[in-house]
Amino acid sequence: MNYPGSINKTYKKTVINYKNRGMDLEEIINDACNYYLEKDIAVIYKKPTPIGIVQVDYANNAQIKKAYFKEPSTLDYNGIYQGKYIEFDAKECHSKTSFPLKNIHDHQLVHLSRIIKHGGICFLIINMNEKYYVFKGEDLLEFMHNTTRKSIPFDYIDTKGFPLNYNYTTGLDFIEGVNQAYKELINFEKNKN
Amino acid sequence: MNYPGSINKTYKKTVINYKNRGMDLEEIINDACNYYLEKDIAVIYKKPTPIGIVQVDYANNAQIKKAYFKEPSTLDYNGIYQGKYIEFDAKECHSKTSFPLKNIHDHQLVHLSRIIKHGGICFLIINMNEKYYVFKGEDLLEFMHNTTRKSIPFDYIDTKGFPLNYNYTTGLDFIEGVNQAYKELINFEKNKN
Repeated sequence: MNYPGSINKTYKKTVINYKNRGMDLEEIINDACNYYLEKDIAVIYKKPTPIGIVQVDYANNAQIKKAYFKEPSTLDYNGIYQGKYIEFDAKECHSKTSFPLKNIHDHQLVHLSRIIKHGGICFLIINMNEKYYVFKGEDLLEFMHNTTRKSIPFDYIDTKGFPLNYNYTTGLDFIEGVNQAYKELINFEKNKN
Repeated sequence: MNYPGSINKTYKKTVINYKNRGMDLEEIINDACNYYLEKDIAVIYKKPTPIGIVQVDYANNAQIKKAYFKEPSTLDYNGIYQGKYIEFDAKECHSKTSFPLKNIHDHQLVHLSRIIKHGGICFLIINMNEKYYVFKGEDLLEFMHNTTRKSIPFDYIDTKGFPLNYNYTTGLDFIEGVNQAYKELINFEKNKN
């Protein structure tokens, strides 16, 4: 997630565009979630941006007059797919060689490992080198466990990640990537029905 | 969820207290979620309040200067318990005789039935007549299907709902109510491990 503080000053003209760098991928994923919802494939929503409210003008239709962005301690999207809990974050990476780990907060890592421990599906959707991947939380944790590097080389993401199809009709079909990445979990649920 | 617009004018002195009527139950449930998180029993978070941002002051540490409360289309809390997707809303009811259905928005009802259809656990925690209940989404939908009443009589909630223990050490043990209400689902997961 990219916060307003990190936005380059030249972008400040566009007032609404407060998360400029992450926006395109977010829109693509929101569209995919809407598509899955319409087709009754999965129920996944982006969580609202966490905000701390300081001042509200009740006399003026409860308009918020002062508030600030809070750092998220969970991932951006969650929901249910094939009876399974699913949670993920969308990450656009502009470096062609490596994915900086500072993109993921410590609280988010703790949360991610908890979700996996409790039997949930937890991953990143990474957009890098004009490709899209489902990158499993398990692979992220394993990488961080085995190295002190502060970024993940693209090769690792390209090898471990599950590439996603992107086309203009259905958009980004990340659920197919989830099917590939979590074959055992998904098949288990399918056999149950 | 109680919105600022519905707050009685006599409460307007307390600026921070913008969701006055729902606050106590919300705090009790947040405490319970923290307890379950610490004990590694369940991973459940309250979703951030949905807010539409109109104006941000980037020069002043990205402070939000103008925003408004949005109507939620999902329920307030979600997470994972025993490998299952879980979602619920907290509702305080001040009437002793019946629970007004206007407390639940149409979008929330659609969402609730989707979650159930996809195999998730979806319910309300109702505080009424100094008692706390897990009231299953299935029972809510059945009631609404069979009647045109605009409120649920307390007797129905007391009969169908699963009463919750509340004490000062562990707070509100709503997970025990979930265990009772969803015995088959929970046992299924337990047997798996």
